[in-house]
Amino acid sequence: MLIIGENISVIARKIGNAMKERDPKPIVELAKAQAAAGANYIDVNIGPATRQGEELMQWMVKSIQAEVDLPLALDTKNISAIEAGLEVHKGKAMINSVTGDQEKLDLLMPLAKKYGANIIGIALTEKGVPPDVDSRLEIVMNIVNSAIEHGVPMEDLYLDPIVLPVAVLQEQVYNCIEAVKVFKQLQELMGLDAQPRTTVGLSNISQSSPEELKSLLNRTMLLVLLSHGLDSAIMDPLDRELMAAVKTYDIVNNKILYAHSYLD
Amino acid sequence: MLIIGENISVIARKIGNAMKERDPKPIVELAKAQAAAGANYIDVNIGPATRQGEELMQWMVKSIQAEVDLPLALDTKNISAIEAGLEVHKGKAMINSVTGDQEKLDLLMPLAKKYGANIIGIALTEKGVPPDVDSRLEIVMNIVNSAIEHGVPMEDLYLDPIVLPVAVLQEQVYNCIEAVKVFKQLQELMGLDAQPRTTVGLSNISQSSPEELKSLLNRTMLLVLLSHGLDSAIMDPLDRELMAAVKTYDIVNNKILYAHSYLD
Repeated sequence: MLIIGENISVIARKIGNAMKERDPKPIVELAKAQAAAGANYIDVNIGPATRQGEELMQWMVKSIQAEVDLPLALDTKNISAIEAGLEVHKGKAMINSVTGDQEKLDLLMPLAKKYGANIIGIALTEKGVPPDVDSRLEIVMNIVNSAIEHGVPMEDLYLDPIVLPVAVLQEQVYNCIEAVKVFKQLQELMGLDAQPRTTVGLSNISQSSPEELKSLLNRTMLLVLLSHGLDSAIMDPLDRELMAAVKTYDIVNNKILYAHSYLD
Repeated sequence: MLIIGENISVIARKIGNAMKERDPKPIVELAKAQAAAGANYIDVNIGPATRQGEELMQWMVKSIQAEVDLPLALDTKNISAIEAGLEVHKGKAMINSVTGDQEKLDLLMPLAKKYGANIIGIALTEKGVPPDVDSRLEIVMNIVNSAIEHGVPMEDLYLDPIVLPVAVLQEQVYNCIEAVKVFKQLQELMGLDAQPRTTVGLSNISQSSPEELKSLLNRTMLLVLLSHGLDSAIMDPLDRELMAAVKTYDIVNNKILYAHSYLD
C-alpha cells in the first residue's frame, strides 16, 4: 500500500509554530522520521493559508525535499498555494484534495494534468458529507468523469470515500467500508481503461475516541479496508502497531517474504 | 462470529494431566475463563484417545457442562468417543472434525444428523494438505455433497480451508484466504439452499513463529478472514488483544454499538 504520512500539519502546535517562524528544523525532522518509518509520501498540510500561502507552500516543499527524498502531498484549500508548491516540487506530487464540486474540479484537475501529479478526489461536496454509499458513488463518478475530461490518468486518481469518527457516526464507518468495495468496481461499472485508486484519511475514525482506543481503531479499520482492496491511506507511520499491522497484512497475503525478523 | 475456545487440549500439560487423573478442577476453571472471555463453544480435545476414549469424552462433557452453560466441540479422531460425547451432551454440540475421506464422511455425517450437531468439514484428506485453492474446493464440495446426502443442514456445516504456519508455508496462508472467499460462494456455485459456514484453526498460522509475533499474526489473519466473510474460528479467547480485534471489527462494521467502554 501507499502510505501518506499525516504528521506535518499546521494543527500540530510545534509544526504550526515552525511554519509561522519559517524554521525548517522540526518540519524536516518529522519528515525524516516518517520516511524512516516507511512513508511513501509526506503530507504537507498548511491549513487554509489565505495569506502568503504560495510562499509558505514553496518554502515547505523546498525545505523538506532538500533533506528527504520523498514526494509530497500538498494539502491546503488554497488552490494557488497548491500550484505554487507543484511548481517547485521534485518528482510526482500529490494534490490533497479535490471535492466533487464542479468549480473545484475545473481548477484542480488541470493542475494535476499539467504537473503530472496524483490527485485525491474526495466523496464530498459543499453540501456536506454524503449520507450513504450511493451518494458517495455518485460524487466520485463525477470526479472520475472530470479526470477523464481533463486527461488525468486513472492511476493518478485516488478516490477517498471519507472516514468519519466511529464514536459519532458509526453507521457512516460501515458506509465507508462498503464504498471502498464499490469504488473497486468502478472500472467495470464505468467501462474505464484502468481502475482508479483509493485512499482514506484513516485517523478520522478514532477522532473523539479515548486515546487508548485510537491506535486499535485505526489499525483494525485499515486491515478491513486493505482486505477490500484499499490502495493507500493518509496515516501516522510513527504508530508502530499500525505499521506492524500493515507489514503483517503483507505477510499473510504473501506480498512480502516472511522472516522471523520481518518487523525489524 | 462464533468463537470456539481452543484451550482445553490434551497437549497442554496441566490439562493433559487433569484428564489422566480425572480431576475436573483445572478443566472446568479453564472452561469458565473462556466462557467469561466470550467463547461461544468450548473445544474439548482429548487427542487420539485410543483407550477409554468413550468414557473420557463422556466424563469431560459432563464435568464441563455441569459448571459451564456452553455447548462443546468434541475433538478427537476416535469416532466412538465422539458418539459417546454426543450421547451425554446438552444443547447443540459440534463435531471437530471430519476430513474429505469418504469413509470418515460416512461415519460422521450420520452422527451429526442423528444428534443435530454442527460439524466441521476440513479441506484435508488422508493424502495430506491440498496444494492449492482448487483442490481445497474439490474436497469441500465432496464434504457438502455428503452433508446433503445424510440430511445435515448447510447451517450446521463449518468448512475449514486449513490454516498453515506462515513461517513454514507462507504461500499456503494466502491460499487459505483465497479459499475462504471461494467457500463463501459455494451456495451459488453448487446451487445450495443455504450457504455452508466457514471456520479455521487460527493459531496454526503462528506455529513456528517467535512468541512475540504470535498474537499479532493471529489477530491480523483473523481480521483479514473476517473481512472475507469467515463465520467462526477455533482460537484463544484468553488472548485479550485478539478479542479486542474481534470487538473492534464488529464496531467498525456496525455489528455492535460503539461506546467508549466497548472493550470492557
